Amino acid sequence: MPTLSNRGNAMPESPIRKLVPYAEAAKKKGRTVFHLNIGQPDIETPQVALDAVKNIDFNVIEYSHSAGFESYRKGLAEYYNKINLNVSYEDILITTGGSEALLFAFNSCLNEGDEVIIPEPFYANYNGFATTAGVNVVPVTSSIDSGFALPPIADFEKLITPKTKAILICNPGNPTGYLYSKEELETLKEIVLKHNLYLIADEVYREFCYDGKQHFSVFNLSGIEENAIVIDSVSKRYSMCGARIGAFVSKNKKLVATALKYAQARLSPPTLGQIAGEAALKTPQSYFDNVVDEYVERRNIVIEGLNAIEGVKCPNPGGAFYAVAELPVENAEEFCQWLLEEFEYNNKTVMLAPAAGFYATKGLGKKEVRIAYVLNKDALKEAIDCLNQALNVYEGSLIRKENIKSI
Amino acid sequence: MPTLSNRGNAMPESPIRKLVPYAEAAKKKGRTVFHLNIGQPDIETPQVALDAVKNIDFNVIEYSHSAGFESYRKGLAEYYNKINLNVSYEDILITTGGSEALLFAFNSCLNEGDEVIIPEPFYANYNGFATTAGVNVVPVTSSIDSGFALPPIADFEKLITPKTKAILICNPGNPTGYLYSKEELETLKEIVLKHNLYLIADEVYREFCYDGKQHFSVFNLSGIEENAIVIDSVSKRYSMCGARIGAFVSKNKKLVATALKYAQARLSPPTLGQIAGEAALKTPQSYFDNVVDEYVERRNIVIEGLNAIEGVKCPNPGGAFYAVAELPVENAEEFCQWLLEEFEYNNKTVMLAPAAGFYATKGLGKKEVRIAYVLNKDALKEAIDCLNQALNVYEGSLIRKENIKSI
Repeated sequence: MPTLSNRGNAMPESPIRKLVPYAEAAKKKGRTVFHLNIGQPDIETPQVALDAVKNIDFNVIEYSHSAGFESYRKGLAEYYNKINLNVSYEDILITTGGSEALLFAFNSCLNEGDEVIIPEPFYANYNGFATTAGVNVVPVTSSIDSGFALPPIADFEKLITPKTKAILICNPGNPTGYLYSKEELETLKEIVLKHNLYLIADEVYREFCYDGKQHFSVFNLSGIEENAIVIDSVSKRYSMCGARIGAFVSKNKKLVATALKYAQARLSPPTLGQIAGEAALKTPQSYFDNVVDEYVERRNIVIEGLNAIEGVKCPNPGGAFYAVAELPVENAEEFCQWLLEEFEYNNKTVMLAPAAGFYATKGLGKKEVRIAYVLNKDALKEAIDCLNQALNVYEGSLIRKENIKSI
Repeated sequence: MPTLSNRGNAMPESPIRKLVPYAEAAKKKGRTVFHLNIGQPDIETPQVALDAVKNIDFNVIEYSHSAGFESYRKGLAEYYNKINLNVSYEDILITTGGSEALLFAFNSCLNEGDEVIIPEPFYANYNGFATTAGVNVVPVTSSIDSGFALPPIADFEKLITPKTKAILICNPGNPTGYLYSKEELETLKEIVLKHNLYLIADEVYREFCYDGKQHFSVFNLSGIEENAIVIDSVSKRYSMCGARIGAFVSKNKKLVATALKYAQARLSPPTLGQIAGEAALKTPQSYFDNVVDEYVERRNIVIEGLNAIEGVKCPNPGGAFYAVAELPVENAEEFCQWLLEEFEYNNKTVMLAPAAGFYATKGLGKKEVRIAYVLNKDALKEAIDCLNQALNVYEGSLIRKENIKSI
């Protein structure tokens, strides 16, 4: 057969999805699997978005403009302006999910072999997009001990080379849930201006900020209009991940014109998803208030539950609906597989995402897992209990022997 | 500002869409523009597909599996098997349009700097995808004088280098409408086996074959199961371009596993589009019979009309709904712009796609345009008449002086 490409071979498997076959096998055995491994929320999509899809009254599902429906772009600009991001609809390209927006950013800003600095742990698929675009990810490590705060400026500066073109952040963060402060954003501004870099901010979890904290966007920073790019998506905001609608947003007109060429090549973003996305702009504030309340309660169950387990450490995240926890095991991936293959408690088990795949530095995160708190509270309580039971009996558990002694 | 990437600068603007601002300006002046420039058919989407979208009964628009809904993949395998392509659902990845399928193919099969041979003129966006993937397009020229038949085997062989990894065809072809014969496909098989290449076939116009001709797929060739990739899409088949649903299909299991990693990175294809696509599998044969009849009538109007204009040459296409015509002008792009900016006949004008953008060889196709016959018959007649009038008065027309003399 003809050979596969080197980059195809180098493409990482999704650490979120690669345990899927084990989960499927567990379910075939009749086991209930609590899915804490993937950010597919159970929250309902706003009715106004579902209704817009149900009420389509055209006879042809046509292409839209490559940049997306103008009416949607204008509506989205209004949404941004309500939260003081000062965006014109011409700054916006509607994309096929945040995924495509990030690919447009990588392709438009970086040449093959250029470098993007990303605080790790980071959303694992950034590796996939970087590999796709031939871009080298340079991780700057944040630590569970500081709750995954932005690493100090000196850590960034020692990584900057002539090939560094951009810094990419996710705020609030997947997988850590960390919400960057205004001061941390100002630090990033200083670095990108000094070194003439792009600052790409994945802000798809913007609405999910807790404990009275406010989201601070890269568009709230003045003086980096040419540098800042926002990656956005309706997936989490309106719990409509399957719509595959995102946005590439920048006030740098030449950059938007360049990204538009990538958009033209693929003709248009999904029409039906755009209809849902545009209608979702009418979602009432009460929807978000309820959702945020729900996530805070869920977060509290998960974080308190985890930290109550001996040997488990989990910082309290300020946003999104993820947390990274350190478990008392040497190899979390083996543990996650064992949970699905071998373990059951009342015929139930838990699926977690091993965190090593969220680090670019080899060897980091081996004891850590990402937990998405996207199940209802009762399920989360059961899942945490189940995890506790599992750590009690797992042979590789670093606390197990003590537990046995204490029995 | 930080610099744009070289590849971003190198991304071609869509030749199909770059005249759009002139068309918009013409419409603002109150002019009717006959859009023969883009493959957005006016044919209605099958009711069964529209109804499936209207009747969604879930409360969350969720991700699907990265490979697409298993039920849809199984349904699509059945569709292929009905036309004797012998495909298992595991050979299929559902993609975001044929566009994404082609990007998966380029990324999985070719390294940066590798070469793909494509008969030109070819679908202009192949250039965009090749630039995105860092792949070099090596054109093998087909000629309007032979009706855009497959160039002779010797023409391919002299282009093959150690970097050649694939041949890409579109069958039936966009922009030429040319339908490859079984013999031409056998020729391609011979080349790809001899040189261990992939054979990527964009077969999205499979249903649109005229004059009793049968479509012959790369999957009808035996012995190249490891080499053949089909790029597919529901866009044209069911006139639902905006669904953005396509497929990457190959019997090469390692290749599918590699492409799946790209699919995992972007999580899932659009859920709503998949619902439409899966439902569309139930479209009755009568729908296609009617559509094909309609396109044949349209084609006849266009081709006969064009060839009746002095100085215009247009081969009769065997499939798809495009034709490439040579016009009696030195620079078709200037002519197309003039049509939108300066010309009107009864306050109407025509938008065409200059064909130079469908060639990779500089200087070729300058006199040619692509015409999509996606309007109703009356509109097509008017449009051809309008074009005829335009060529009579266009200053750059190579036949104009004679016309004036004959008045």
